[in-house]
Amino acid sequence: MAESRSEEVKLLGMWVSPFSRRIEIALTLKGVPYEFSEQDITNKSSLLLQLNPVHKMIPVLVHNGKPISESLVILEYIDDTWPNNPILPQDPYDRAMARFWAKFVDQQIYVAAMKMVGKIGEERDAAVEATRDLLKLLEKELVGKDFLGGTSLGFVDIVATLVAFWLMRTDEIIGVKIVPVEMFPEIHRWVKNLLQNDVVKNCIPPEDEHLKYIKARMDSLKIKSV
Amino acid sequence: MAESRSEEVKLLGMWVSPFSRRIEIALTLKGVPYEFSEQDITNKSSLLLQLNPVHKMIPVLVHNGKPISESLVILEYIDDTWPNNPILPQDPYDRAMARFWAKFVDQQIYVAAMKMVGKIGEERDAAVEATRDLLKLLEKELVGKDFLGGTSLGFVDIVATLVAFWLMRTDEIIGVKIVPVEMFPEIHRWVKNLLQNDVVKNCIPPEDEHLKYIKARMDSLKIKSV
Repeated sequence: MAESRSEEVKLLGMWVSPFSRRIEIALTLKGVPYEFSEQDITNKSSLLLQLNPVHKMIPVLVHNGKPISESLVILEYIDDTWPNNPILPQDPYDRAMARFWAKFVDQQIYVAAMKMVGKIGEERDAAVEATRDLLKLLEKELVGKDFLGGTSLGFVDIVATLVAFWLMRTDEIIGVKIVPVEMFPEIHRWVKNLLQNDVVKNCIPPEDEHLKYIKARMDSLKIKSV
Repeated sequence: MAESRSEEVKLLGMWVSPFSRRIEIALTLKGVPYEFSEQDITNKSSLLLQLNPVHKMIPVLVHNGKPISESLVILEYIDDTWPNNPILPQDPYDRAMARFWAKFVDQQIYVAAMKMVGKIGEERDAAVEATRDLLKLLEKELVGKDFLGGTSLGFVDIVATLVAFWLMRTDEIIGVKIVPVEMFPEIHRWVKNLLQNDVVKNCIPPEDEHLKYIKARMDSLKIKSV
């Protein structure tokens, strides 16, 4: 509605959420200044409920008063709105592949990985195996590439930080190495490449505080770790 | 890779699939000629397995030898590749809203609706209620609009043909009217608008053959209807 170009960019997110961190990475890569509003998922604010009445979840990007939710939708919006430093490839086929793999991370890998939470014994092993089977497809995609986006960091890399910095940190919590280097050398090489990017490096939660948070959250939900 | 503009467009699909029909609607709206290859979901072809090794599912669009799968990804590809008669809005915020609602149809409404299949009694009633709760949000979106895309048929309308012509035809099978007109007058008005579009009208499976197919499929899977 508003035609004003005076940018007001606000992000409702959580420091510990991979979905929220994606948006921070994209905005920072674009050089878009934004105000960050930390949300409490255990006590949702009336602002969050008002801005995302359908899902009532973070992240929500508010641009000049208009709210957008769902992290993949927000990333596309950011690329459409601030076309400098594009995060999606320009070629239509490459764009399709980026969208395909981003969807794969969220709807396959993330869904499979969540099934490990709170499981023990055979049930946990089956969930680990299912997650690894999906990760093998990502491993194959990385052969001969520095990034999932090809030669430079892009859309899928930003989305797949969920794998690099959330899934790979849960070894201690799940009680098993989900992404061992012997099995996934390409993924480990890619994580090193990601860490060479200052924007990514500064946008991911510090490992010790991150693990402390997850453990406390699991305790409060009475989820057994191992 | 190929720079040739001699278009070879092939769609691996199924006449009865809402996901496949979306692609046919989009290609027809764009005036892109395509070859259709009907697939048998009960006996997957080696071509399908080769072109979509990750999901092994239709639809797959093959453009000049390169395969793209996942219907929402294909629709974006079609709009990026043949920009005439755009199906996504041009404004970044409107594009985001279209992507948001398309995702909502596939990841919320479709998922909830599938939970009705094969259920009876209280379990079925709960699944119907959950589906209706989601449909109420779509109903609200349609107030004052001819189409979910606004004044003309667009991305969300194409995606939501799943609601208009699949979900609304299953009353007899589920044994209950899921989208009664008294409860969803806006959705019923929108379905009438959709049927005024010749492309949509010609791209949806005829109701009697469609229902015959669903019944036969449920019988073969030994799913009880009511």
